[in-house]
Amino acid sequence: MKIGILGYGNLGRGVEKAVAANKDQELVAVFTRRDPSTVKIATPDAKVLHTDELVNMKNDIDVLIICGGSATDLPEMTPKYAAMFNVIDSFDTHANIPTHFSNVDKAAKEAGKIGVISCGWDPGMFSIARLYAHSVLPGGEDYTFWGRGVSQGHSDAIRRIDGVADARQFTVPVPSAVERVRSGENPELTTREKHTRECFVVAEEGADLARIESEIKNMPNYFADYDTTVTFISQEELNEKYSGLPHGGSVIYSGATGENKHVIEYSLKLDSNPEFTGSVLAACARAAYRMNNEGLSGAKSMFDIAPSYLSPLSTEELISHLL
Amino acid sequence: MKIGILGYGNLGRGVEKAVAANKDQELVAVFTRRDPSTVKIATPDAKVLHTDELVNMKNDIDVLIICGGSATDLPEMTPKYAAMFNVIDSFDTHANIPTHFSNVDKAAKEAGKIGVISCGWDPGMFSIARLYAHSVLPGGEDYTFWGRGVSQGHSDAIRRIDGVADARQFTVPVPSAVERVRSGENPELTTREKHTRECFVVAEEGADLARIESEIKNMPNYFADYDTTVTFISQEELNEKYSGLPHGGSVIYSGATGENKHVIEYSLKLDSNPEFTGSVLAACARAAYRMNNEGLSGAKSMFDIAPSYLSPLSTEELISHLL
Repeated sequence: MKIGILGYGNLGRGVEKAVAANKDQELVAVFTRRDPSTVKIATPDAKVLHTDELVNMKNDIDVLIICGGSATDLPEMTPKYAAMFNVIDSFDTHANIPTHFSNVDKAAKEAGKIGVISCGWDPGMFSIARLYAHSVLPGGEDYTFWGRGVSQGHSDAIRRIDGVADARQFTVPVPSAVERVRSGENPELTTREKHTRECFVVAEEGADLARIESEIKNMPNYFADYDTTVTFISQEELNEKYSGLPHGGSVIYSGATGENKHVIEYSLKLDSNPEFTGSVLAACARAAYRMNNEGLSGAKSMFDIAPSYLSPLSTEELISHLL
Repeated sequence: MKIGILGYGNLGRGVEKAVAANKDQELVAVFTRRDPSTVKIATPDAKVLHTDELVNMKNDIDVLIICGGSATDLPEMTPKYAAMFNVIDSFDTHANIPTHFSNVDKAAKEAGKIGVISCGWDPGMFSIARLYAHSVLPGGEDYTFWGRGVSQGHSDAIRRIDGVADARQFTVPVPSAVERVRSGENPELTTREKHTRECFVVAEEGADLARIESEIKNMPNYFADYDTTVTFISQEELNEKYSGLPHGGSVIYSGATGENKHVIEYSLKLDSNPEFTGSVLAACARAAYRMNNEGLSGAKSMFDIAPSYLSPLSTEELISHLL
């Protein structure tokens, strides 16, 4: 199947790497809003084209994987391109997913295409873990812990503070909270009890460190509800120790059948958040292509994808090797 | 939806409990090969009927959950009843799954019914964890650890030894092996390196304990390839400490995108193996009913079931609460 990638940031590069690892997929082109001559990609035989070219590529691309931001890019891009292609996105603004789903559904159905939204690991693999657990053991409680890993949104928020040259924020689950949940105790946990936030900050020369630390720790939504630590380091140390984008976490579900307790845990430990997310998007592209070939259309989430559609293996191979 | 249960051992009772917890399911009857007057069930409004009655109940039951053994019951029963009902089973003789799938497929397709085979946790939830991981990160390695939990097959094997009154066998993963896999090391592990076997044995009075221990430890397939410990205890102690049927385990997948490693782990800690397995079967019954109502027929495994089909919630509810 022929794949297009729209957007070439961290996620777009992750998708490119995943497509290269999938023998049944071929990257046709990366589409960018920048001047294509300034964008160098890793796949030798793929083109770099301006986004404006997409309208002329309807017959050249089976699935377009859209690697844009959830705030402004995806709400506009995914419905727009679902009218031309099978599309995949990683939309993750939770409160707006129903609206986004409905917009993509309308465009995709009219065009006879599939649009799989909110793919990745959360939303995505973690959502699936929650759904399986709730379906098998109704009435239980799910807990999601994120980290230890880099939150790019929180790192950006620190970088916007006056006097900050660079920053990296790690989200860290509180080990005792994880253990309580794992034991099947079903605790009620506040935001502060679930995660701590570790900030590694490079200050500009002469900046007021106490003010920066206070601004971080008191920032509403991002840090005020958490136990936050701020460590000032040099740019060299940040580059050396904290340049990667590791992440992960766990969905832990605690349910019961009568007095018998059952604990289900799904966890990820990822060296590269964008590369793993990109890998999920590439697998979803395979599913979208197949479902569309079977005559299906409209918006889908990973909830609507039978696991076998994500795999390149045949039914016989799956049964023999993995069942 | 109206549910029938065929077979009323540990698993049948587990399914009954799960159906009672599912608001959209109603248990119509338990079917048994025994004299129905000797079987007492937990559901007040359901009937106990002889298996022979099933042929007259085609219009009274939407899904028949077959709770028989994989050795002789299911290979015969599942295809037979797939010709009359949507059916669910937990067939777990791995080498024979392709043949079983094909037999069920033929009968179910001719009848326009769905037959979901090999439901449960392994095969079942663990198979799904393996499939998702392999699909997202091709080329990695999956490891399955079982336990700490009771293996009923191994307990039965010990009970067949001369001089043994009762026994309970626990399968236990080797912690250092689990840690090596979790670290992403991708080790090659022998059978002996992955699991140990702990046997709690009640000997008959005057039995030769040394002979019993030796017979257990040298039993081919069951124990000879493992580090096995045998502890003789009284019937009272066995009843008190080891009467439950806990089980669980982990599927750990170790994959990579280039030099970045990713570890995916799905684990279960179950107080009751048959009750959890029964809960999975009940959720699969929901999916079979819906898929059949949409016109699908033939044999399926959990690989072929989109996660949303397992849930009683609507698409809108799933998106709002779990995505």
